[in-house]
Amino acid sequence: MDSSKSSDTSSKINELARRRGFFWQSYEIYGGVGGFVTYGPLGTRLKLNIEAKIRDIFIKKLGIFEIESSVISPGQVFEASGHVNHFKEFMVKCSNCGKGFRVDQIINEKLGISLLEIEKMDFAEIKKVFRKNIFDCPECNNALKEPTQFLTMFKTTIGPYSKAIGYGRPEAAQSIFVEFNRLYKMAREKLPFGVIQIGHALRNEISPRQGLIRLREFTIADLEFFFNPEEANCNFIDEVESEVLPILLAVNRKKGIEEISNFTVREALEKKIVCSEWQIFFMVMAMKLLLEIGIPIKNQRFIEKLPWEKAHYATQCFDQEVYVDRWGWIEVSGHAYRTDYDLRCHMDASGADFRIFKEFEKPVEEVNYLLKPKMSLIGPKFKEKAEEIIADLSIVPVKEVLESFEEKGYYFVKGKKITKNQVEITQRKKIIKGKRFIPHVVEPSFGCDRLFYVALEYALKSKKNRTVLSFPRNIAPIQLGIFPLVNKDGLNDKAKTLSTFLRSEGFLVEFDDAGSIGRRYARADEAGIPLCITVDYVTMDNDTVTIRDRDLWKQVRVSINDLSKLLVDYFKEKIEFEDFGDFIESK
Amino acid sequence: MDSSKSSDTSSKINELARRRGFFWQSYEIYGGVGGFVTYGPLGTRLKLNIEAKIRDIFIKKLGIFEIESSVISPGQVFEASGHVNHFKEFMVKCSNCGKGFRVDQIINEKLGISLLEIEKMDFAEIKKVFRKNIFDCPECNNALKEPTQFLTMFKTTIGPYSKAIGYGRPEAAQSIFVEFNRLYKMAREKLPFGVIQIGHALRNEISPRQGLIRLREFTIADLEFFFNPEEANCNFIDEVESEVLPILLAVNRKKGIEEISNFTVREALEKKIVCSEWQIFFMVMAMKLLLEIGIPIKNQRFIEKLPWEKAHYATQCFDQEVYVDRWGWIEVSGHAYRTDYDLRCHMDASGADFRIFKEFEKPVEEVNYLLKPKMSLIGPKFKEKAEEIIADLSIVPVKEVLESFEEKGYYFVKGKKITKNQVEITQRKKIIKGKRFIPHVVEPSFGCDRLFYVALEYALKSKKNRTVLSFPRNIAPIQLGIFPLVNKDGLNDKAKTLSTFLRSEGFLVEFDDAGSIGRRYARADEAGIPLCITVDYVTMDNDTVTIRDRDLWKQVRVSINDLSKLLVDYFKEKIEFEDFGDFIESK
Repeated sequence: MDSSKSSDTSSKINELARRRGFFWQSYEIYGGVGGFVTYGPLGTRLKLNIEAKIRDIFIKKLGIFEIESSVISPGQVFEASGHVNHFKEFMVKCSNCGKGFRVDQIINEKLGISLLEIEKMDFAEIKKVFRKNIFDCPECNNALKEPTQFLTMFKTTIGPYSKAIGYGRPEAAQSIFVEFNRLYKMAREKLPFGVIQIGHALRNEISPRQGLIRLREFTIADLEFFFNPEEANCNFIDEVESEVLPILLAVNRKKGIEEISNFTVREALEKKIVCSEWQIFFMVMAMKLLLEIGIPIKNQRFIEKLPWEKAHYATQCFDQEVYVDRWGWIEVSGHAYRTDYDLRCHMDASGADFRIFKEFEKPVEEVNYLLKPKMSLIGPKFKEKAEEIIADLSIVPVKEVLESFEEKGYYFVKGKKITKNQVEITQRKKIIKGKRFIPHVVEPSFGCDRLFYVALEYALKSKKNRTVLSFPRNIAPIQLGIFPLVNKDGLNDKAKTLSTFLRSEGFLVEFDDAGSIGRRYARADEAGIPLCITVDYVTMDNDTVTIRDRDLWKQVRVSINDLSKLLVDYFKEKIEFEDFGDFIESK
Repeated sequence: MDSSKSSDTSSKINELARRRGFFWQSYEIYGGVGGFVTYGPLGTRLKLNIEAKIRDIFIKKLGIFEIESSVISPGQVFEASGHVNHFKEFMVKCSNCGKGFRVDQIINEKLGISLLEIEKMDFAEIKKVFRKNIFDCPECNNALKEPTQFLTMFKTTIGPYSKAIGYGRPEAAQSIFVEFNRLYKMAREKLPFGVIQIGHALRNEISPRQGLIRLREFTIADLEFFFNPEEANCNFIDEVESEVLPILLAVNRKKGIEEISNFTVREALEKKIVCSEWQIFFMVMAMKLLLEIGIPIKNQRFIEKLPWEKAHYATQCFDQEVYVDRWGWIEVSGHAYRTDYDLRCHMDASGADFRIFKEFEKPVEEVNYLLKPKMSLIGPKFKEKAEEIIADLSIVPVKEVLESFEEKGYYFVKGKKITKNQVEITQRKKIIKGKRFIPHVVEPSFGCDRLFYVALEYALKSKKNRTVLSFPRNIAPIQLGIFPLVNKDGLNDKAKTLSTFLRSEGFLVEFDDAGSIGRRYARADEAGIPLCITVDYVTMDNDTVTIRDRDLWKQVRVSINDLSKLLVDYFKEKIEFEDFGDFIESK
């Protein structure tokens, strides 16, 4: 990675983001607080459009449910889920200035041990490293204290009772799990079904440094997909079986090999690279989502998580990563097979029953045998030992006794042989209609702020010394710029009327009449507006306008009558700019 | 208010909301926590649609900016804004069980004093009431303690430093104010402009009781509109001047009169009932918003807040109220004239400069006079007193001296007369190009959960013993139901293909093939689906389907080819159901 270039790109994004109102660090007037950002007007619109894409791809096709719950959750929820125990980071504080630092950052910076290696260390090993080395505070150069564990959830109190602990949710998944029974009813008591929640979540990071990549408050999209583990087939698998997934395998990662292997969905399932059909299906959908927000497949990969990297609830886990200039590969989504872990935890903690009754296709007959000692034979034969023998016979597994009769003709109790004729064997039949099980869960989970960041980085282009944000047309924050060529002779009014009309047709429109037309095009390019419509003197004659394409810098002239239909089709990706008509001479 | 009827309506809404997945109290498996709700699939969609309406009405027309910031805010923000000092409720705890109660609820329930009267009391008066009376705990009947003040913000710590206090924001407004300078730049340094934020907010209520009406976590839509108080005209005022606002005046409220007065916008401004044109404009828009989500004007009113009811930042404040069956009139939005209060607070606390420089139309010449004692005259005349006199002349206001010369011919200094000829007077001219001022703010602020509740209550109808949710068509959670008449002969596949097509056209579609067609219509009515499309045997012949209207229970038959266009126009409210074609015989 060329570090000079990388810092350029990232600085350029930050400068542009602040100036044009995509995002910036919040509360700057109070010195800023790490880990919090404010999305400005263009950023909020872009973020809403990316969230709408998630809804498009996941909700509409699959009939996934969406819910909205609270960020603050009662303590029990995250005690039961294991977060209160596991959601911790190793931290070390300075003995002098009191500032806290992540242990992995300190060890990495001071000893050069890779973050991957540090992630494997447990608390004892971490403490050993700190006992062997003396580390100075990066801020004030005084000695650092002993490492501790820091719970990275925001903690608060709900209502006036100091014992009613609440946490800011670090994920949106738990508020889906705790409502499972109600949601299952809404799915008309049928599996499989999925529930998504897109909302703010909180992680009280010790020292967040990477802007949008590591936030204390962020937007998460957690999709929990519930299915019967014995009927785990995905009914869309045929549609995606020849899609190719670029995967960095755990086995290679362990050897330090960064090589990506390409597998078709079918291959990955056959070779058990990915164990769940639903999981790999969502991985394909995630790949498509990223493609739609502008990230080419070649800049995407999935990495298989190593055992010590996996969250406490996951059996198999893949991270979807995107290559960015400054930080290399960064995670944008996680794909975890959570099994029945979460539902089971909440069942145990709350006493609720999340099991589902599955009726067998035909009822199964279960036969139970009962053993009854014949007193009239055992009593006289074993005398004073009879009572003990009878007591033992009442607790030994009947199956064991019957097998022993079959094999040897007798069964040993208290060192005595009991024969088949000394007991009475009766059958009891039971009709079993079905069984109860806890659904399994696969979870695709997206960090919306990271999706936002990669969309912005991949849109960023430079053309003739001008910054152009080439967003895919249907995530662009503003769809249309409307400009009167000049501010006189009625052109301005005509352009305003056109703006109002196109707004009422549902388009996101920006009217701009300030400065030369060239400067307005430049501003529009920088805001990523795909099409700019100019009202000129010809418009006043024949009701046609020019439309200019952001990426081609070419213009066509179309009739205002045709405009709405053309634009609808263009933004639905039914037609391309070239289909609008012949290019005209650009001014 | 008929209380038996009211409890019926409210119970009916709650029962329906839980069963069909509009909303329910969160975390039921852990016993539920007051003040937190989960919106289910239908509810989330309805809520998103209502929020989209707010965006439609406020953002699109006015070019209002939207931003998204964090729920957790550093302590300084709410110290500066006055919330840490003012955002408190009087609370009283039980000496035995420790449960906390709102003081106003206790006094109201035990002494029968109206909540309106209690709201006027300050802390001293509250304490007096508690000293005069002995109140028992409503839960365990033991004695209540002394009243205290409870800060109704959620408090937490940001990062590992225990001194870095953070609060859950009780409103979205402050994260707009603190970013004023950046937002003003995005408005190209022109007033007026507005910024909206729609997001979660938190109020740590002592004992929330009223379901969706009083939540600890809720969604707020705060719109802050910035303008120059000396150029306070609203450029849309002509468009709304004859709109009629139903207002309950403060002067009547003080007398206990509940009579609504109707004023046109023009009258209300002329009579100074509402002082700001922008404020009344937003009140009209709020009225239209409520109308569009299904609340007739006759069930809306604005109440003028009394001095002791107003928030600490507001000069003039109106609440928009809607009549609901259970609680009578409830607030759904607040309209506050916040003046420059908030910007000024944050300027004082942070040192940032939020003043705007306004250039005068033509520069103003300011003349300053300088006074210089003539030493050659004063020295000889006043001898040892001369030094004192000269020192005094250097600090007295020049204007005062000149006026005294004009009036009396002399000016007294240290008991001595100084005359005009003993001093030299020079002029210094200064050109003043403009002045600096802090913008004023009017704020419409909507409680989205309350909008949701009133939309649900007003949609709730009963027809032939069947529950129908008659949502206005463009907030309905699902737009179209698609049903195959039977599950055979290819009807099911045809209906599924149609569903896929209509989803790709952007409609919110529910496919349903379970149970009789009658039961499916009933389920659709209860979910508020405006139109249901049925694929029947005729469809297989001639590619037409029936469309059934939720409210009329009438059907038309249309060609699949015309469907998309008709439905687009219908949901854009360009055509009515009657325009689809002739009604056919209902099955």
